[in-house]
Amino acid sequence: MSDSSARLDTLANSAERHLQELTEWLRIPSISSDSSRHEQVAEAADWLVKKFTSAGLKVELIPTEGHPMVLAETPEVKNAPVVLVYGHYDVQPVEPLDEWISPPFEPTVRDGNLYARGATDDKGQVLTHVHSVCDWLSSGQPLPLQIKFLIEGEEEVGSENLERMLPQMRDRLACDCVVISDSGQYSDGQPAITYGLRGIATYELRVDGPNQDLHSGSFGGAVMNPAIGLCHMLSSMVDQNGRIKIPGYYDNVRELAPNERDQWNQLPQDDQQFASAIGVDELFGEQGYTTDERRWARPTFDINGLTSGHQGEGVKTIVPATASAKISFRLVPDQDPNHLTEQLKEHLQAHAPPGIRWSITADHGAPGMLADTESRFMAAARNAIEKAFGVAPVLIREGGSIPIVTRFQDVLKCDCLLLGWGLSDDNAHSPNEKFRVQDFHRGIQASAVLWDEIGQLS
Amino acid sequence: MSDSSARLDTLANSAERHLQELTEWLRIPSISSDSSRHEQVAEAADWLVKKFTSAGLKVELIPTEGHPMVLAETPEVKNAPVVLVYGHYDVQPVEPLDEWISPPFEPTVRDGNLYARGATDDKGQVLTHVHSVCDWLSSGQPLPLQIKFLIEGEEEVGSENLERMLPQMRDRLACDCVVISDSGQYSDGQPAITYGLRGIATYELRVDGPNQDLHSGSFGGAVMNPAIGLCHMLSSMVDQNGRIKIPGYYDNVRELAPNERDQWNQLPQDDQQFASAIGVDELFGEQGYTTDERRWARPTFDINGLTSGHQGEGVKTIVPATASAKISFRLVPDQDPNHLTEQLKEHLQAHAPPGIRWSITADHGAPGMLADTESRFMAAARNAIEKAFGVAPVLIREGGSIPIVTRFQDVLKCDCLLLGWGLSDDNAHSPNEKFRVQDFHRGIQASAVLWDEIGQLS
Repeated sequence: MSDSSARLDTLANSAERHLQELTEWLRIPSISSDSSRHEQVAEAADWLVKKFTSAGLKVELIPTEGHPMVLAETPEVKNAPVVLVYGHYDVQPVEPLDEWISPPFEPTVRDGNLYARGATDDKGQVLTHVHSVCDWLSSGQPLPLQIKFLIEGEEEVGSENLERMLPQMRDRLACDCVVISDSGQYSDGQPAITYGLRGIATYELRVDGPNQDLHSGSFGGAVMNPAIGLCHMLSSMVDQNGRIKIPGYYDNVRELAPNERDQWNQLPQDDQQFASAIGVDELFGEQGYTTDERRWARPTFDINGLTSGHQGEGVKTIVPATASAKISFRLVPDQDPNHLTEQLKEHLQAHAPPGIRWSITADHGAPGMLADTESRFMAAARNAIEKAFGVAPVLIREGGSIPIVTRFQDVLKCDCLLLGWGLSDDNAHSPNEKFRVQDFHRGIQASAVLWDEIGQLS
Repeated sequence: MSDSSARLDTLANSAERHLQELTEWLRIPSISSDSSRHEQVAEAADWLVKKFTSAGLKVELIPTEGHPMVLAETPEVKNAPVVLVYGHYDVQPVEPLDEWISPPFEPTVRDGNLYARGATDDKGQVLTHVHSVCDWLSSGQPLPLQIKFLIEGEEEVGSENLERMLPQMRDRLACDCVVISDSGQYSDGQPAITYGLRGIATYELRVDGPNQDLHSGSFGGAVMNPAIGLCHMLSSMVDQNGRIKIPGYYDNVRELAPNERDQWNQLPQDDQQFASAIGVDELFGEQGYTTDERRWARPTFDINGLTSGHQGEGVKTIVPATASAKISFRLVPDQDPNHLTEQLKEHLQAHAPPGIRWSITADHGAPGMLADTESRFMAAARNAIEKAFGVAPVLIREGGSIPIVTRFQDVLKCDCLLLGWGLSDDNAHSPNEKFRVQDFHRGIQASAVLWDEIGQLS
């Protein structure tokens, strides 16, 4: 039996303890957005510090203006790669509480799933790497590479402190590859490696008209209605086929490579099932692309919210003084959010009706990300996942945005592996969040094999 | 000295008492929409019953499912016209209370204006006719016509009970002409007779997409965003020049008569001043019409409110499950609100994007109204106003809607006179409502002359 196989057997024998420790960590309600939970967030960080310390890692609790980061390192290994595992120990709020079948901070196993807030996002997934490394070290054997952990407590509130502190932490975080497990498999039984993320740009568009709501009888027809102006401006941004009409918007969009389209076309996609699951009669979007292509590799425009005038019961016949919209764009490589802001302003200027004043406020922006699918780390990850899950992973992109990933690439000049063990119905951010127990254990095994594989790259 | 002149002198000598009685009535906080004010609303009705009774009118308090109506009649006059004076004794709410310089139910005279809730809308204006009639009868002289008063207590909450009860009250309310003073002069020093009102049709348009808000990263680009769908649908209803694009919308619009346009063109209109007053840089509307023409005699489309998705602080990148709009149209003769509902549904059907469900709910509708400007009652009113105000009235229309007026015309088959004594800055429905004391007294005089003039028509 190889060292590697022996290690996987040992890990399998520790499955009960692994789950028990996860359960322990999940009991701590580390809701980062809830100021009344400040102590519990700190408690979750301390739990991790103790875990790393007991396995012999060098650990530091790094304070921030918000919640602390946990930085841990295994010993340096000469001429071997350095991997940085990034994750977060903070969790989402739990409202609406009455929709939880078992309480969010009383982890409960039902039908092979562990239910708790943070089960999949991200304590359960983080712990797969923590267990594989701690158990390895506890066995007395040296790791064939150096592993650093950066587990922060503010991912669910925007990672602002980490983003700001990243440049000054460059040397301490120096690595060849960042590993992040905060996403999912493609589908049940089909693991995946995510090699692309969309970027994001969010704005608030505000249209102001009269200095107060006006009587629509006395004034209607004499003034531009700001809500109508807003609708015209928003409607002008996208055509009836979902194609965005801002001049230049598609200029820097990197087209899908033929091999990407080929690979994705082999994935089981069922538009009708997808539509039913979200409750619409039919899907909709840009012509000439499949649903996954539109979700993962094409840029979008969405209205996230609309506000104007009378919103209560009944009728109030006014010309509202003001109207506003929250809007967002998902960007793909090589679109630049700052450039978009300029294009957007020009487009709105050209489409703003007379008789109103308008303003646009940029909130946050991040470019999209594409990892090198031909890298040696990617090959190592494919092997590791195939060994642990018994199925080769598919290469996919993800439509969401993880701005910190692009920042890692920029600042640390490293490769990146997004290895998600979750499933799409894990209810991250929703009531009854869960993580399949089997996927937790397979994740631990895949993680251990990954260290083996990457160690052999040196 | 003619009887008529003597009567005006007598009225002038009673000016102090007239104002004192108005003040007394205004002290009663008859807010019809406030269920905690039920007794005070009844008290305001009782005040009026007593006033009529003491002058010898036949009075009845007619109960409704809501607040009662006061019906009073002077004696029948053979072969003479019958006039119905309609008005209301209920008032608007008073919030925001801290913006009132003097308390809303402590009537206060400042700079020649009487400040109180209900001063102009409508107790002050109603009382001009009550005083002219009661004083006439108290003088012992017979009126040359019969006058009926219908003063209701639910105008500010929609007049639903009156509308429903009107057909069964047809005989009791039978008249040749309805007189209503619940509007305004054209401008300070320029009295007016309003011979046209716009109609109204209000709707709620709702667009439903996914069964819950979706993550705009994972789903954006794959589904129709209901808020975008709503904006497309709303934007399709009106072009960039303010022209409504619903097919057939203008088919039954009665064009302005050349003499109407000529008369209105002689009115002092200052678009720049109008724009400044409401706080916009420029006015906007259908090409080829002046501002007054657009406000009074052209139909409109307005969005009264928009609601969708995230409306709070900050960013929430979702595809909202639903989006809705409150919309209204002001109609002109001979547009029919029911016909519009059909046209609107067809238009929306043609412009609804795929991948959403939509519904439209009609709220209330009423056609526009045009009185005969050549009628004998109109001539009588012109004479009466010129005598009392010293200036001939201009003939104008009003952009708002008073659905009960059209109902009176339909059910009672009568002429209609809208004789407003108020000013546009009287703050009806706003803090610091007022009525100019001089206009109150001139209104009483105009009312008295009007009875003389109409009496001579018999």
